[in-house]
Amino acid sequence: MSSYFGKNIRIQIFGQSHSEALGVVIDGLPAGLSIDMQQVQTFLDRRRGGQNDYSTARAETDQPRIVSGLVNGVTCGAPLCALFENTDIRSKDYQHVAKIPRPSHVDYYAGVKYGDNHDWRGGGHFSGRMTVLLCFAGAVCLQLLNSWDVHIGAHIEQICTVHDRRYDPTAVSADELNHSGSFPVNDASVEEPMKRVMLDAAKRGDSVGGVIECAIIGLPTGIGNPPFDGIENCLTNAVFAIPAVRGIEFGMGFAAAEIFGSEHNDAFCIVDGQLNHKSNNAGGAVGGLTTGMPLIFRVPVKPTPSIAVEQDSVNLETMQETKLSVWGRHDPCIVPRAVPCIEAAAAIVLADMMAVVNRA
Amino acid sequence: MSSYFGKNIRIQIFGQSHSEALGVVIDGLPAGLSIDMQQVQTFLDRRRGGQNDYSTARAETDQPRIVSGLVNGVTCGAPLCALFENTDIRSKDYQHVAKIPRPSHVDYYAGVKYGDNHDWRGGGHFSGRMTVLLCFAGAVCLQLLNSWDVHIGAHIEQICTVHDRRYDPTAVSADELNHSGSFPVNDASVEEPMKRVMLDAAKRGDSVGGVIECAIIGLPTGIGNPPFDGIENCLTNAVFAIPAVRGIEFGMGFAAAEIFGSEHNDAFCIVDGQLNHKSNNAGGAVGGLTTGMPLIFRVPVKPTPSIAVEQDSVNLETMQETKLSVWGRHDPCIVPRAVPCIEAAAAIVLADMMAVVNRA
Amino acid sequence: MSSYFGKNIRIQIFGQSHSEALGVVIDGLPAGLSIDMQQVQTFLDRRRGGQNDYSTARAETDQPRIVSGLVNGVTCGAPLCALFENTDIRSKDYQHVAKIPRPSHVDYYAGVKYGDNHDWRGGGHFSGRMTVLLCFAGAVCLQLLNSWDVHIGAHIEQICTVHDRRYDPTAVSADELNHSGSFPVNDASVEEPMKRVMLDAAKRGDSVGGVIECAIIGLPTGIGNPPFDGIENCLTNAVFAIPAVRGIEFGMGFAAAEIFGSEHNDAFCIVDGQLNHKSNNAGGAVGGLTTGMPLIFRVPVKPTPSIAVEQDSVNLETMQETKLSVWGRHDPCIVPRAVPCIEAAAAIVLADMMAVVNRA
Amino acid sequence: MSSYFGKNIRIQIFGQSHSEALGVVIDGLPAGLSIDMQQVQTFLDRRRGGQNDYSTARAETDQPRIVSGLVNGVTCGAPLCALFENTDIRSKDYQHVAKIPRPSHVDYYAGVKYGDNHDWRGGGHFSGRMTVLLCFAGAVCLQLLNSWDVHIGAHIEQICTVHDRRYDPTAVSADELNHSGSFPVNDASVEEPMKRVMLDAAKRGDSVGGVIECAIIGLPTGIGNPPFDGIENCLTNAVFAIPAVRGIEFGMGFAAAEIFGSEHNDAFCIVDGQLNHKSNNAGGAVGGLTTGMPLIFRVPVKPTPSIAVEQDSVNLETMQETKLSVWGRHDPCIVPRAVPCIEAAAAIVLADMMAVVNRA
Repeated sequence: MSSYFGKNIRIQIFGQSHSEALGVVIDGLPAGLSIDMQQVQTFLDRRRGGQNDYSTARAETDQPRIVSGLVNGVTCGAPLCALFENTDIRSKDYQHVAKIPRPSHVDYYAGVKYGDNHDWRGGGHFSGRMTVLLCFAGAVCLQLLNSWDVHIGAHIEQICTVHDRRYDPTAVSADELNHSGSFPVNDASVEEPMKRVMLDAAKRGDSVGGVIECAIIGLPTGIGNPPFDGIENCLTNAVFAIPAVRGIEFGMGFAAAEIFGSEHNDAFCIVDGQLNHKSNNAGGAVGGLTTGMPLIFRVPVKPTPSIAVEQDSVNLETMQETKLSVWGRHDPCIVPRAVPCIEAAAAIVLADMMAVVNRA
Repeated sequence: MSSYFGKNIRIQIFGQSHSEALGVVIDGLPAGLSIDMQQVQTFLDRRRGGQNDYSTARAETDQPRIVSGLVNGVTCGAPLCALFENTDIRSKDYQHVAKIPRPSHVDYYAGVKYGDNHDWRGGGHFSGRMTVLLCFAGAVCLQLLNSWDVHIGAHIEQICTVHDRRYDPTAVSADELNHSGSFPVNDASVEEPMKRVMLDAAKRGDSVGGVIECAIIGLPTGIGNPPFDGIENCLTNAVFAIPAVRGIEFGMGFAAAEIFGSEHNDAFCIVDGQLNHKSNNAGGAVGGLTTGMPLIFRVPVKPTPSIAVEQDSVNLETMQETKLSVWGRHDPCIVPRAVPCIEAAAAIVLADMMAVVNRA
Repeated sequence: MSSYFGKNIRIQIFGQSHSEALGVVIDGLPAGLSIDMQQVQTFLDRRRGGQNDYSTARAETDQPRIVSGLVNGVTCGAPLCALFENTDIRSKDYQHVAKIPRPSHVDYYAGVKYGDNHDWRGGGHFSGRMTVLLCFAGAVCLQLLNSWDVHIGAHIEQICTVHDRRYDPTAVSADELNHSGSFPVNDASVEEPMKRVMLDAAKRGDSVGGVIECAIIGLPTGIGNPPFDGIENCLTNAVFAIPAVRGIEFGMGFAAAEIFGSEHNDAFCIVDGQLNHKSNNAGGAVGGLTTGMPLIFRVPVKPTPSIAVEQDSVNLETMQETKLSVWGRHDPCIVPRAVPCIEAAAAIVLADMMAVVNRA
Repeated sequence: MSSYFGKNIRIQIFGQSHSEALGVVIDGLPAGLSIDMQQVQTFLDRRRGGQNDYSTARAETDQPRIVSGLVNGVTCGAPLCALFENTDIRSKDYQHVAKIPRPSHVDYYAGVKYGDNHDWRGGGHFSGRMTVLLCFAGAVCLQLLNSWDVHIGAHIEQICTVHDRRYDPTAVSADELNHSGSFPVNDASVEEPMKRVMLDAAKRGDSVGGVIECAIIGLPTGIGNPPFDGIENCLTNAVFAIPAVRGIEFGMGFAAAEIFGSEHNDAFCIVDGQLNHKSNNAGGAVGGLTTGMPLIFRVPVKPTPSIAVEQDSVNLETMQETKLSVWGRHDPCIVPRAVPCIEAAAAIVLADMMAVVNRA
């Protein structure tokens, strides 16, 4: 396992889906930072399941216990550790997993790597449950970033074939980033069709995926340490820590391959006496450095692999082919819950990268 | 700058486009590895410019001088350093860059970060020239990987709107990966239309981008250390060290967002008494671990920003808007030269990740 | 803070002397390792205070709660986290510390670094209490090392001017390393005079220091990655994480400065057909590599700075000189309790360094 | 090998004693730093051999070629690489080393680790020759530190049984640190007896060791990141990269074990309205943090293992015991040449640690 991240502000996670508890340690936060725990909880609640028909019925309260690093709600310079107890565990649901592996789920591959001692219960350390830790750390880092006037938001850009309106890359406002509620979209009219696709799939015992678009505003020019710790490398690194993410693109991304340099280049101009850009096809990142324009990236999320629809698998004891239907408490679509996770990943990366720059 | 990469096999690069020389240090190679320098040179030649009408006229011989780490062509356990002298330098070409920045080029942003002392000549440390170092390290790592029966290849999947045939994700052969020549495509019939698009753009003083697809075969199951050093995180990290890369997707990638779990899941089956997969939509990577299937990813490359076509920019001395045409020795399309760079990035990552596993 | 250590087996600690709890995360342990928790507890008990007249009266049970990483007592590959609740806390004892700093205690300097938000209670993250975490991690790593036939032990080589017999550097047995009880010495006759010195100092409200000698046997030849991760660098790095350590020497150490090369060199010889050494002045470490001989180092521990004897200090509010007597629950000599900490530090380092080599 | 060091300012070294060249890459230097290369050369000359009767006759000019990172003598933000060509190589001198190993030399142990492919010539990557790279990096870092009013100096505290006067730990001046010439002592009268001891040993074909004391002034209070990157951990880590170093002690070091807390504690006082210390037994480091007092440490250096005096060794081909006299160009005492190396190690560490704090 490689369960730590960052250089200046460092994250260490621990726990499994069905261990007694799981937790995150954040080392390197500046001393004297007042943490608004209510705001943190609100952020965590956006990721929490058990609240509607298209997310898992497992109901964890997701309330962190701060065991170190805060004195009277203020960081003291020592590592901050938050602990989440696991309460709503039904380990018997997972007995069969080691014997008949679920297609496209990490179980089988983890079993090859870690052997019989892999924790099969609920995905073990690979579980989506672990993203609550990312969200906690992200929520704390967001408060640090907000104090530097950096703002992060994401929306559901796509569920199956239903698309939301993308951010205007040259004009993203802090308001647009502040999606309240658990179904963040830019165009309210897509919520209904998106939910219908998810519920239809759920009814059939199937699942769907989607795309999340994230935007960050307020970043100064020149954040990034190319070539190996450029802004794209670092953001990507954290984003792939979220299970089910299958790719990433910055700015125009793959579409940049189809146009000419004269169309893709972001011309410079003068606005209010300052250098500015006429477009933002780069998505705010050139050569590993931030450009000062909104930083924009999109991430595809695959359909949940645990489905009730009958699939082909193998009985590892008999080494015979067999059929498998995965029942249990699974999300038919994790995209809505993944939105705060993406924001959190971005927050962790940017707080880490900016910590040095902003150390007064 | 963050000019080092890796944990077990570590790469440190140095140099600028117009410094006296540039070089790469590789630390952690096992002692006793015989390096075939002719093979390394053949690999480097695939990246070299100055050889046709769609790549830069700058003609560097790209012949490495091995200054340490090899004794009689065999690694001795000490860091291997290869030095490349810069010879075909015309620094006067770049005098204007600091004054009137080139749109979508890193110059301006690097100037903000490093100040007046940034090395403006030829892009400095950000130059595509630096990828010769990635290719050297990659060529060495490839020999190590080949000794473990791991093979890597990439092809030009797309130039502007012209597409090559993709690899069959369930059946990639070592032969298909072994593209000789400087224009690697799977379907020979696309070479001509692709070249025509590039030369047309060049004639107009414009540039085009494309997509590169890379495949790796022979990987054992379970390579990767999730969540932060999973196979996707690590590969991505290195790939973004190549200037102009705008994204990445594994397996079906963004297309996975549009289909159902029942369609996307890779069912297990038995082939020759062994567990196998009926499909490879995952592109050989699930939850940060290799699945044992061919590892496949695609990377979009933007059109070269340095174009002769007139663009809008700003004169930083007068802070007035102005027009700019970038003349000089630039590639109208870097995709063909980026193919070995992508292979090299993958080789560096995989050698690093497998070094521990394969240490006997 | 920099509260993590290691490359292959990584330790992350968190907590303060008076936070709700403190804990340690160990990432990178091989899956399938059965942990004997009774043995761990026995090791922890050697470090525990509150058991005699020369150690602090603070009585923590030091019983770890394993919140993750173990399934039925066996490592599963996920990070192992152990939590220790803080129960016997009397925070009012420390109110004055921020105002009138204790000489030679880290309080004042931490206050300069972290500002008013530093956790002054009991030394915060700098407290000797944190070494329980080192001991937990060390006890786990010791079990791994023991499975590789590597054994570690340490004894009180010196308290004030009373000396114990040193290990014979050419012939250390596993038995000699296995000190039971809380007062490990090689020569039982020194126990009484050593304790007398400590109790005499305690009676006067004063404190004493000492020297700890540690030996490790069973190490293969060639462990170490010079020049920056040689065996000496790595051991030293961990040892200085124990508060009050003031130096380190390997083998003859400082005494090597006084003799000639012909006296200091460890001649080679043949014993039972194998290459061996006639002496071990090097203490088992040459040029950053283990020699296969017992690895031996000594560490001086300063007298506890918190003393009741009246000292000169400064009132930081009035900036006037003042007198200070530190009352509270302090050890007059921490050397006995530091012995398992030194063993633990060595165990953590060696498990980390050997993890790669011994990965089968 | 682990040939890199540092977090913010990073050093990567490469080369062997008899490779074509050796070099060092420094990444992370702030852009805009003007490097005085004459001053660097003066520093390097202090370490250079071939200049007197008690150092090796191997005569390298030790003139660095700057291949990257500087534009017109000023850092540009890209990694700075300095190359040193090896010219005065006599590889035939070392043919026998692999067959009959030199006692207390790293050769044999490196041979076990790296196998037959270890570079036996002149110690390979383990050679003292590599310290020229440490000195180059140190000389550059010193200029950065000097710009922050931090000064470093060291002297020969001991050669065999001849002692120099130690620094007064409460009052070290910049003048005292600025030892010109190649034999830095505080008390000029010890130079002659020290040299006599070295030359006497040389005449007998023997060698001697010594102790180096280093002092650093101008450090602010609170530098260090305990517990694992405290000021002591970090300094020690770099110091052990110098071959022949056998230990380290800060402040009173081992002598602190013999006195009482009331004697060892450094009382606070008021001087000129500011908090100050009445003594500096801590050597400027408490609990991993700098105290603002002069930072002082001492390092024992063992006698050179390569001696002409006949020693016992083993013929590895026949596995028979045999006699060995090591002829060649070896220093009978490396202590004088190690003095700038110790200063350089300290400079690298402090520049790295202060880089973040002093980034404006």
